[in-house]
Amino acid sequence: MTITTRATLMQSQSPVERYLNTLIAEISQIDEGKIADYIPELAKANPDHLAVVVVTVDGKVYAAGDADVPFTIQSVSKPFMFGYALQEYGLEAVLRKVGVEPTGDPFNSIVLDDVNNRPFNPMVNAGAIAMSELLRGADAAEREAAQMTFFSSLAGRELTMDETVYRSESETGHRNRAIAYMMLNSGMINGPTEEVLDLYFRQCSILVSARDLAVMAATLAAHGRNVLTGERVISPGNVRDVLSVMATCGMYDYAGQWMFDVGLPAKSGVSGGIIAVLPGQLGIAVYSPRLDSVGNSVRGIEICKRFTRDFSLHAYVDRTDTRAVVHRSYHADEVTSNRVRTQPEIEILLKAGKAISVIEAQGPLHFGTAERLIRQASSYAQGSETLILDFRRVAYVDRAARMLLKQLVAELATQGCAVVITEACANENLRGLPEAFSDLVEAGQLSFVPDLDHALEAAENRLLEVHGLPHQVEKLKLADLELFAGLNREDILALEPLIHPFDFKAGETILKVGDEGRLIFIVARGSVSIHLGEADDLARRIASVGPGQAFGEMALLDGGTRSANARADTPVLVYGFSVEQVRELAATRPQIMEAMLSNMVRSLSSRLRAANDQIAALQ
Amino acid sequence: MTITTRATLMQSQSPVERYLNTLIAEISQIDEGKIADYIPELAKANPDHLAVVVVTVDGKVYAAGDADVPFTIQSVSKPFMFGYALQEYGLEAVLRKVGVEPTGDPFNSIVLDDVNNRPFNPMVNAGAIAMSELLRGADAAEREAAQMTFFSSLAGRELTMDETVYRSESETGHRNRAIAYMMLNSGMINGPTEEVLDLYFRQCSILVSARDLAVMAATLAAHGRNVLTGERVISPGNVRDVLSVMATCGMYDYAGQWMFDVGLPAKSGVSGGIIAVLPGQLGIAVYSPRLDSVGNSVRGIEICKRFTRDFSLHAYVDRTDTRAVVHRSYHADEVTSNRVRTQPEIEILLKAGKAISVIEAQGPLHFGTAERLIRQASSYAQGSETLILDFRRVAYVDRAARMLLKQLVAELATQGCAVVITEACANENLRGLPEAFSDLVEAGQLSFVPDLDHALEAAENRLLEVHGLPHQVEKLKLADLELFAGLNREDILALEPLIHPFDFKAGETILKVGDEGRLIFIVARGSVSIHLGEADDLARRIASVGPGQAFGEMALLDGGTRSANARADTPVLVYGFSVEQVRELAATRPQIMEAMLSNMVRSLSSRLRAANDQIAALQ
Repeated sequence: MTITTRATLMQSQSPVERYLNTLIAEISQIDEGKIADYIPELAKANPDHLAVVVVTVDGKVYAAGDADVPFTIQSVSKPFMFGYALQEYGLEAVLRKVGVEPTGDPFNSIVLDDVNNRPFNPMVNAGAIAMSELLRGADAAEREAAQMTFFSSLAGRELTMDETVYRSESETGHRNRAIAYMMLNSGMINGPTEEVLDLYFRQCSILVSARDLAVMAATLAAHGRNVLTGERVISPGNVRDVLSVMATCGMYDYAGQWMFDVGLPAKSGVSGGIIAVLPGQLGIAVYSPRLDSVGNSVRGIEICKRFTRDFSLHAYVDRTDTRAVVHRSYHADEVTSNRVRTQPEIEILLKAGKAISVIEAQGPLHFGTAERLIRQASSYAQGSETLILDFRRVAYVDRAARMLLKQLVAELATQGCAVVITEACANENLRGLPEAFSDLVEAGQLSFVPDLDHALEAAENRLLEVHGLPHQVEKLKLADLELFAGLNREDILALEPLIHPFDFKAGETILKVGDEGRLIFIVARGSVSIHLGEADDLARRIASVGPGQAFGEMALLDGGTRSANARADTPVLVYGFSVEQVRELAATRPQIMEAMLSNMVRSLSSRLRAANDQIAALQ
Repeated sequence: MTITTRATLMQSQSPVERYLNTLIAEISQIDEGKIADYIPELAKANPDHLAVVVVTVDGKVYAAGDADVPFTIQSVSKPFMFGYALQEYGLEAVLRKVGVEPTGDPFNSIVLDDVNNRPFNPMVNAGAIAMSELLRGADAAEREAAQMTFFSSLAGRELTMDETVYRSESETGHRNRAIAYMMLNSGMINGPTEEVLDLYFRQCSILVSARDLAVMAATLAAHGRNVLTGERVISPGNVRDVLSVMATCGMYDYAGQWMFDVGLPAKSGVSGGIIAVLPGQLGIAVYSPRLDSVGNSVRGIEICKRFTRDFSLHAYVDRTDTRAVVHRSYHADEVTSNRVRTQPEIEILLKAGKAISVIEAQGPLHFGTAERLIRQASSYAQGSETLILDFRRVAYVDRAARMLLKQLVAELATQGCAVVITEACANENLRGLPEAFSDLVEAGQLSFVPDLDHALEAAENRLLEVHGLPHQVEKLKLADLELFAGLNREDILALEPLIHPFDFKAGETILKVGDEGRLIFIVARGSVSIHLGEADDLARRIASVGPGQAFGEMALLDGGTRSANARADTPVLVYGFSVEQVRELAATRPQIMEAMLSNMVRSLSSRLRAANDQIAALQ
């Protein structure tokens, strides 16, 4: 028992849940409002029931109060049914059936928009009945099943209907019947009117809890993808239209004050439920059956006002920070690839590195962020030959952003600067990008490279080549090797017999973590990657070494085991030196050991300095 | 001439401007709509004038068409005047004068809300006239001046009035006069009615260009701070209220369709201007005097529809990416401070580093992002003794986020985990944070540390101390020094006479970039920072070294000049060794040189590995 209580307490420790519980306790003091009694079954609701549930777009549920008490969905179903119609028929066809203007008249008004001969909007009964006619199915049973399936997909669980309320609605819904027959009369409804009405009554009688409604609202916040099941229920474009109508028509005659006080698209129902949506963030549902004169839940509205005020959730509070779109920007004189460079190469990169610009973008790319990104990129890449745009942290690239990016690439092309986009391929939200930009790729203005490190290395190699240091030359003479720099001719001659030349094919493993370290290697031809992970995980390389450079040289110190893998990137020729033989030689020629160690200190120290620069630039 | 043309072409190369120019060219084909003629002066407008201007919250202006043609502001002034009233009197007082509900009646309706005896909203003439009475000033001239000053602050330049239109408005504004006298009759206006009307007519007659209106709209998008001058004109809370009323009442009887098609808070005027606001991102203004039957600019609406559709600017398109709130998270077994650690220290940090959690947050902290941050922090810091929250990249922390953070700190405190917030002090948007959290600071649950590196070092030091490695012990014996590890007793004895002990006070510079490198230093007591910048720029330190560790040791290789500064963090005792004397000794004892170089290789190599790990963790 004690354990259960403690576990419950632990769970309720989330600040948001604690807040909601306190809020519920306070709001429960309000006893204004009156339960709907236009049909007898609704009048049986418990006036004390009170719940608030908040669900984030990643499916975290915060519930307080009677979050699992079932009630009939009533008019809260209307925006979803509008979404269903948009999904099935498209906007143009749906707008022939219903408008999107708010009306000053009550929700159960019989008046139609006399200019267009259609209900004013899908949030009034007339509009909702018109939507019910659009349910797909060969017969009434199939259409009924389609309706239940759709609402169940929104809630993320199988919903049922309250048969008693349904019968009560059906038997006493004279006004709705009048609305339907008036629409039949004016040609807005074509099908069997009683069947359409039946579907509408069934829709209103679907049983939900505040928890269900919050999941449904969060699914709108997540742009139509169910936050619990991941199912795509409504497309993002249709969700936008649904939210727009909720914003102006969702709260009956309270729309202006609601926008002012709460500022979120919302929908209320006569059974006492209200949903509100903060797009991209969360869905809120409240339940309390006491209604005000307009038909909105008194305590529900108060909860929404308090919650959105206390947490600044109003739609017109700023949450966008377009500055964040540039995660980091640097040139190749500040941050370089993991390719280990010789001193002359480092000097060229330091001198001419401005020719390579890197911008790591982040977050969603839409007009606001893309406009800032291309503005910064255009100025940052002035005079560059390559601009690398890293998209590893980009959440998505919308249509507006694509258009702006295309124009940036075209503009930079006229200045002789090619654009490389990296890390876009592994990101499933960016999957369509290479095809969308295929014309630029074909024109040679843009390329896609899987990872930033290799893209940067390739750009560096081109730059070094332009500056007279082609990177793939051979270094076959011992005197050319960094490790032996400073040794005299006699020492070199003494070392020569110790060489063991090895050939490796591209992709072959040269040494592995844990191997015993008996040899020091020096690259004479080709390129070798040093990495820590699995042998085929090239993306995680920590360095790549080229002609003249050593690897595995730590064996000289202690002859311990290898701490990294080495793999041939290209066909390579490496010279191996046995640590034992070098040590024997050094016994008579100590200057060899001193020179080799000094060269290692120099190389390590220059690499450490570069690494520290890179850390500073990365922070 | 050629040069001028080329320069103009270069300037117009921005993709956004190019888009707007194309849009203007297409929209200019539309010749529907009729110029307002209810006062003779307005009828003189040129029907062909057409402009669109987009201004970002950081003040970048994109203009196309007749962006600088002056026209009278008319009803576009109304939301701003509502903002003025809110600034001067506060919400409660203003809501006694005017409501916030949309009305189905025309903008010049004489009807008042009979429940509250006030105009329906500040966007209809009656409401705007009620606002005019609220202008501050001892007499008419002062009130008139206050009005011009306010509007000039919004536009970021000194505005003037069109005297002819003003006289025309004043002479023919019978309907507005009727509205004003009806409000006088019902007690809504108390002051001299003709003077209030005069101020209202003057307000409508202020001359603006599309460029001015776009700046004014962008100032609302920037939450009330003028995007050109930086002046705070309206508070963010009042801007929120202004935008709310614009959303429901700004476009006359077109509100529902506008929300559906464009989805941005907007206001139109009878002279043909429309403004629209995308909060946090941009302001848009269009100008074309041809009006539709409702009184909105035909071509203006078309431009807004096209622009917002082409660039997905609708308010209910997702732009929030709450996931981005965690820039990076790591424990001290992955990333450490710049403090150089000995091998035993490194081993403890690797083993026990999970006790220190670091989360670098970024972007705006509001409910949606803070909820995610504290959720991740709470789980990430499970079992930690210290949680460092780095706020360098945090744009702001709103009230909701503060509340959630407070609860996180309190929750972690019960688990024995203290929170440190870093980089908050230098960030001017976070300036109030330490005071807001002073109770937690006093309770010892939270501390503020200027920079992350020092906070991390302090946490590491505490952790090492707990594990039996207090960091501030002295290392006075040569055999304890890392550089001389592995040397035998005789070598040590031979080295001892070469020691030159030096004392430095805290803050003293030990060596400077460019100095000649004659000595190798080893710390015996205290702590030394190595940094590249100015001697007093501690934040940019690249390393800090403690007892037993060397610095300036590269002098052993080539005796070149110093490449970094070293500065005493605390009172320090260092041992200096002359490179020359060490070299002399090594001539007879080569193993001394080999051991020193080997120790340097080991130390550099371990630091390089740590740096590479850090780079990997940072990426």
